[in-house]
Amino acid sequence: MKKIEPRTLKGFKDIFSDEIVAREEVVSTIKRVYESYGFSPLATPALEYKDILVGYGEEANKQIYTFRDPDEISIGLRYDLTSPLSRVIAQYKNLEMPFRRYQIQEVFRYDKPDKGRFREFLQFDIDTVGISSVIADAEIIAAMYQSIKALGVARFKIRINNRKILEEVIRFAGIEPSLSHSVFRVIDKLDKQGLDAVLAELGEGRVDASGAEIRGLFLKKEQIDKIKEFIMLPQAAQKEALDSVTLLLGDCEGIEELREIDRYLEGVGIDEDKVVIDFVVARGLDYYTGPVYEAILLDAPGYGSIMGGGRYDRLIGQFMDKDIPATGASIGVDRLVLAMQKLGLVKRRKNNIDVLITCMVRDKLVEYHKLAFKLRENGINTEVYLGEEGIGKQLKYADKKDIPIALIIGEDEFKEDIVSIKDLRAKERIEKEIGDRKKWLEARVGQKRVKVSQLVDEIKNILNLG
Amino acid sequence: MKKIEPRTLKGFKDIFSDEIVAREEVVSTIKRVYESYGFSPLATPALEYKDILVGYGEEANKQIYTFRDPDEISIGLRYDLTSPLSRVIAQYKNLEMPFRRYQIQEVFRYDKPDKGRFREFLQFDIDTVGISSVIADAEIIAAMYQSIKALGVARFKIRINNRKILEEVIRFAGIEPSLSHSVFRVIDKLDKQGLDAVLAELGEGRVDASGAEIRGLFLKKEQIDKIKEFIMLPQAAQKEALDSVTLLLGDCEGIEELREIDRYLEGVGIDEDKVVIDFVVARGLDYYTGPVYEAILLDAPGYGSIMGGGRYDRLIGQFMDKDIPATGASIGVDRLVLAMQKLGLVKRRKNNIDVLITCMVRDKLVEYHKLAFKLRENGINTEVYLGEEGIGKQLKYADKKDIPIALIIGEDEFKEDIVSIKDLRAKERIEKEIGDRKKWLEARVGQKRVKVSQLVDEIKNILNLG
Repeated sequence: MKKIEPRTLKGFKDIFSDEIVAREEVVSTIKRVYESYGFSPLATPALEYKDILVGYGEEANKQIYTFRDPDEISIGLRYDLTSPLSRVIAQYKNLEMPFRRYQIQEVFRYDKPDKGRFREFLQFDIDTVGISSVIADAEIIAAMYQSIKALGVARFKIRINNRKILEEVIRFAGIEPSLSHSVFRVIDKLDKQGLDAVLAELGEGRVDASGAEIRGLFLKKEQIDKIKEFIMLPQAAQKEALDSVTLLLGDCEGIEELREIDRYLEGVGIDEDKVVIDFVVARGLDYYTGPVYEAILLDAPGYGSIMGGGRYDRLIGQFMDKDIPATGASIGVDRLVLAMQKLGLVKRRKNNIDVLITCMVRDKLVEYHKLAFKLRENGINTEVYLGEEGIGKQLKYADKKDIPIALIIGEDEFKEDIVSIKDLRAKERIEKEIGDRKKWLEARVGQKRVKVSQLVDEIKNILNLG
Repeated sequence: MKKIEPRTLKGFKDIFSDEIVAREEVVSTIKRVYESYGFSPLATPALEYKDILVGYGEEANKQIYTFRDPDEISIGLRYDLTSPLSRVIAQYKNLEMPFRRYQIQEVFRYDKPDKGRFREFLQFDIDTVGISSVIADAEIIAAMYQSIKALGVARFKIRINNRKILEEVIRFAGIEPSLSHSVFRVIDKLDKQGLDAVLAELGEGRVDASGAEIRGLFLKKEQIDKIKEFIMLPQAAQKEALDSVTLLLGDCEGIEELREIDRYLEGVGIDEDKVVIDFVVARGLDYYTGPVYEAILLDAPGYGSIMGGGRYDRLIGQFMDKDIPATGASIGVDRLVLAMQKLGLVKRRKNNIDVLITCMVRDKLVEYHKLAFKLRENGINTEVYLGEEGIGKQLKYADKKDIPIALIIGEDEFKEDIVSIKDLRAKERIEKEIGDRKKWLEARVGQKRVKVSQLVDEIKNILNLG
């Protein structure tokens, strides 16, 4: 019979336990913060009617996985968690407002796969729906801030801006409003690409490092000059930044909103060095209408913005007769976990197994398992080696799986009610002493014989489980 | 602009916080048990090459969502977690064996939607790969047993059987081996449909209650008689059941395997009333080759088998040059949660919010939020009401969201550094006293004034957070 070649689709990946352990640590930390703010979980289907997946803009729409189901209905895979939330708000008439939810689900994008960029990835969103006051935005920013702190990151920045200010700039520069999103996307590249590239893209285009041609927006010189004036505004502390943009554009709603956010953040005691106003932040999606915000980890800048979001007061209105204001942030969990690993801020455990019970006396198999039951009852995660290999192979198995402790019980030990505990984490020290990993595994080093009655205490002691 | 109608696809559902809170409680309990056995997590993509989704049988194959991606590659959505696991085993050459994993992910089936039956649902699987000894099966059964106990269910049964015994019966009855899966599926219906229906389906077919015609297998009378002899074996304790089937079929591997499982389960002290041998259990999927097992909750029989699985020693071989033995069980999480709710064994909380801070003095907004920060620091999940409605509306919001405590701080209270705590869970008692929900919400009953410095202790006291 012809064999099926085992393979994963391009852009998709299997996730093994080490990565899941790290991911769960990050997700549960953030979840705890979000729940402390009174946000509640929501989940929506992976599949939606195709017409529900809207609002992302032309570029993004190309990346939506769409197809027909067996009933010939046009459906698509979840592209983000914001459109489904908007649908939910419009669909259920008796939801309590404000509706504040977090959502942790995979999204699917037919994107060009790249290092660290996958076609299915876990998103973690938080949104407040039904509040037009930017206090809701300020609260999301505070929750982002506290999440990053809770993750143990010391050096980070949350950059905030307002689409209303950017729209003001479009007017100020006399640019056709239909071009605004394209201009925002170019401005947003300032940090990564530099001023010259941005100015070129606003004008006649440029050729990037790989030789690819990037089409320009062909703005007039005086329009580009005005944009330049805006993006060159001195980087300054919040209040000064707001004063200088007011000088340039005059008073406007967007500026007033940022002032209000600033007052909240200062009032609740958030470190003002960590939340800064940055007028080139635009965020990529078309649906933003007000404040936008994103977080970067200063010691892992290569991972880009690891959280980001903004206000979208007109997305929900696509599904109903009236607009409902909303704001929220999104986390690309996998990228954040990679960044956290780079910073050494997540555990590097392959799994959650504490003990491997090795089996030497085949006809006592049930005895080994009985012992495992006893350890489990005491909160010790215990695997019994199920294969029929010799003790050397069993210890290597424990070693490769990074299990910290192996138990060895032979005929003699059974008779004396004794267990040999081998502390496998002592291997670095012991390897140095005896210089040979293989010998160490087989030798009775790093080993201690204890009475069965003392076993649980001894193991907890080694594991520091108290 | 034309509005998009907000709607979910037929057979799919949005899951709100009450259901997610219940689901997380159930999942985390089982996960703790599985981890205590030394199983580690794995996740695989929602999308696979179409040819990877194999082994389920003709009937099931019709339910796989398949389509072409933009590159015209035939792909499909995950139908279960067993085929992807098999693919993983064949694909990664350096996995440590035995490979023991659990996996918690949604699966997709283009099934006929029905009450409680959805086209996307959460599955929770546990499998041991690389061990041909049925000790691996016994361990899975033990983990199922301990999971159900950990969930607090008192009355349940795990029914076990062996496909090898069923295959022996096919030989014993002189039935064409190619018909065996069809015969198994019919036998498996004995509990639900009764003996007459089973015999009819083995013979010339029948018409079911809804008037639908069910085609028979047209076995010969003497074949049907032999099957009947087998399925009518007296229901007895393990050892007697095994003895009586040995009398009928002679000694065979399948029986010996069940004896070994029985010795293990008895040895580790598992209640023998709760794990029983039942020769009509077959399980629906084609790929099983050895022991099969399933659990039912005796006080929620309508939910069918809430966990089930078996050994599949030839599925992985479809992806590689050799067979690799494997066994494992699957849980339909949503159905289990429904059953648990029926049994009153899961919390019925709408969310995890402890406190709502109501806002009456608009220009002190930041002060309310500062107080929230303080409560959160002390592990109290706190929402600040973000809308601009009056106090009555705010209290109703807390009430509808089942938030147990509301804080009320007016001008006077701010001056005196005092907070009024309203214990909203006291409403049943208070409603009885004052007889009017509306009045209760607005009245100063169930309310207590405390100093800000005592607030955290007082709240923890009410919530029993110790």
